[in-house]
Amino acid sequence: MNFEGYKCGFCGREFFPDEIQYRCDLCDEPLSVVYEYSSLEKKTTVERFSARHSGLWKYRELLPVVPSIQPVSLGELATPLHEAKTLAGSIGLSNVFLKNEGRHPTGSFKDRGTSVGMTVAVERGVKAVGTLSHGNMGTSTAAYAAKAGLTCYILAPANISSTRLLYLSVYGARVILVEDEYDAVYNESLKIGMKYDVFFINSDNPFRTEGSKTMAFEIVEDLGWEAPDWVVAPASSGGMVSGLYKGFLEFKEIGIISDIPKIAVIQPVNSKPIVTAFKKEAEAIERVSHDFISIVRSLGNPYPPSGNRVLKLLRELKGTAIAVSDEETSAAQREMARMEGVFAEPAGAIALAGLKHLIKLHRIEKDEKVVLIVSGFGFRDPGDADSLVDKPLTVGINNLESEIARK
Amino acid sequence: MNFEGYKCGFCGREFFPDEIQYRCDLCDEPLSVVYEYSSLEKKTTVERFSARHSGLWKYRELLPVVPSIQPVSLGELATPLHEAKTLAGSIGLSNVFLKNEGRHPTGSFKDRGTSVGMTVAVERGVKAVGTLSHGNMGTSTAAYAAKAGLTCYILAPANISSTRLLYLSVYGARVILVEDEYDAVYNESLKIGMKYDVFFINSDNPFRTEGSKTMAFEIVEDLGWEAPDWVVAPASSGGMVSGLYKGFLEFKEIGIISDIPKIAVIQPVNSKPIVTAFKKEAEAIERVSHDFISIVRSLGNPYPPSGNRVLKLLRELKGTAIAVSDEETSAAQREMARMEGVFAEPAGAIALAGLKHLIKLHRIEKDEKVVLIVSGFGFRDPGDADSLVDKPLTVGINNLESEIARK
Repeated sequence: MNFEGYKCGFCGREFFPDEIQYRCDLCDEPLSVVYEYSSLEKKTTVERFSARHSGLWKYRELLPVVPSIQPVSLGELATPLHEAKTLAGSIGLSNVFLKNEGRHPTGSFKDRGTSVGMTVAVERGVKAVGTLSHGNMGTSTAAYAAKAGLTCYILAPANISSTRLLYLSVYGARVILVEDEYDAVYNESLKIGMKYDVFFINSDNPFRTEGSKTMAFEIVEDLGWEAPDWVVAPASSGGMVSGLYKGFLEFKEIGIISDIPKIAVIQPVNSKPIVTAFKKEAEAIERVSHDFISIVRSLGNPYPPSGNRVLKLLRELKGTAIAVSDEETSAAQREMARMEGVFAEPAGAIALAGLKHLIKLHRIEKDEKVVLIVSGFGFRDPGDADSLVDKPLTVGINNLESEIARK
Repeated sequence: MNFEGYKCGFCGREFFPDEIQYRCDLCDEPLSVVYEYSSLEKKTTVERFSARHSGLWKYRELLPVVPSIQPVSLGELATPLHEAKTLAGSIGLSNVFLKNEGRHPTGSFKDRGTSVGMTVAVERGVKAVGTLSHGNMGTSTAAYAAKAGLTCYILAPANISSTRLLYLSVYGARVILVEDEYDAVYNESLKIGMKYDVFFINSDNPFRTEGSKTMAFEIVEDLGWEAPDWVVAPASSGGMVSGLYKGFLEFKEIGIISDIPKIAVIQPVNSKPIVTAFKKEAEAIERVSHDFISIVRSLGNPYPPSGNRVLKLLRELKGTAIAVSDEETSAAQREMARMEGVFAEPAGAIALAGLKHLIKLHRIEKDEKVVLIVSGFGFRDPGDADSLVDKPLTVGINNLESEIARK
């Protein structure tokens, strides 16, 4: 294993603890895992990765577990990078790709980080894991914990819907509904976790980010070991974008790519703490205090734990941040399904809504290669169903022929 | 292409029409596609298949389109064959595998047949496709039609739920609700299809079966080019089981495997026309006339169009047929999720419920290799939610620690 320790993504200080550590002692920002990159040479690394079977564990020299350990896996495979020709044509671009993260075992990109985090938990002999989530991350953590045979605590808000509760519960996790604010519960979960040896694989857990970064690796590999010009991605906690940047930066460090793609972070207008801080050129996120009402429920994070890190990366690496309306997201969801056969959750379609803003703002040129991150499948959380369904005809069998005949 | 023509699965007569043909002129049974198997030699065929990228199109010498055509694909990959060690241990067997068909682009095995059927449609220049479905098959056909840019008609029952209507509609298909019996609409769809050049990729369409058979190919490949002893599978129209048998029979014809696995067909007690006919040793299915009330909605087929073919195969190849209760299916669903992290739709868990009967009946020996077909993902059609969810705790943040401390 090349895993060396941790580095604070904000102040740059390095840590080499024996224990799992989550955040920087000094500035309380999330930590990143650090490897010994000098042992990885471009050509042999590419050859080695190319020769292996599909799936995130093929990149194991850049994953934080010993090579001998059997990964906790539900059969992750490289998610498809669909070339979206019809969609691209409709918005006047030439090269648009959909990175379809809905194709993971539990239907979202969260499975990457969960697979890595759960494997770290097993390697370290942890008996219980947990997370804080009312959606994709909770479902993912519960499923992998079931596979690993570990006790799993899911902390969710008390006003959760019965459908979401079902998705969190089917795998046998102990779901605890907590009647308090997200950030308070988040901090409490880390404290309790340390005290009772429960490994909380929360959104900005350093090992979750290690899983998310493999999305960048797969994109580069599928584009013939080259980076795209743009990656457009949704942001809630900022964990996915932190992972994408880390993946591209590591491939640049090894020499596999020469440039880091520009990343555009997209948030819904009702919950846009990263967009607001970016536009103000602020160094730190301000907490969103109002209630969040949107179809893009999974992006309703009032105080993104990885927000400051993402802001810094966007500034340094020529990224941008854009907010879009729910109507734009619904329209994007509809277009993606009808033009490309890909049904995304609202958070998975928001990147397309954001891309249209970038085009209007002339930030993207016609021939640039653009990858849209489709974070998850639409079946679990469809969003505004009314805008997706055209009212069907009802006929008797005797009128079926005439209906089809008049096309 | 090795595609030669069609053969009736019942009377054995061969057909070589220029037009697409669905059923036998003589006995009205569904047709099967026939290839020139003599041109395929075991060793080179296995080498060729092994060297290719994952996904059903790797078996193209045994698929009914010209090699030059670009398949209509949403990024199908070989679905995982999970070794279910915890589950196997709990029922006293050594080798149980889950063929997880929920991992397809739209979440069910139907995507195999749709991808093949849609590619045939494009190859033949058809402008519109259709199917008869209120569930997985309709969703799958709509998604692939969107990708192919073809008009798509989905004929569904008038009493369809709003959730199911959403899944059929998101991809932009023309959904027509028909107020008549399934079999009448089925026959009408084929007549209208011929007249107006609409290619109906129904459950027993010969090209849909060609897709489904690749499930058998993948199972054999994943087991090191060997057949399992048993395959346990759900049955509605009988199309999936027809496909499984065809796949194993073709691999036997080429010499890749030497024995055909025993197949056990599982149906819910409330809709078991195949089981009833099998137990009576009848040659033909009798129509189920009573109403179908079950959590296994997708298996409610009163008169399976491929039923007689399946009966014949079960008799000739030492298969069996078993009916299970809804309670047994719910329990199986719960166990599969909690022990293996795989959340199946009720029809996807029914095979496990059936396996337990086979064990009680001493039909299966401890060391036999058993593959359970998990037909689809549970998120779209969870079944009896109450039996899957344990009531969660609700606590204030101050009581969270004590809840976790007492484990």
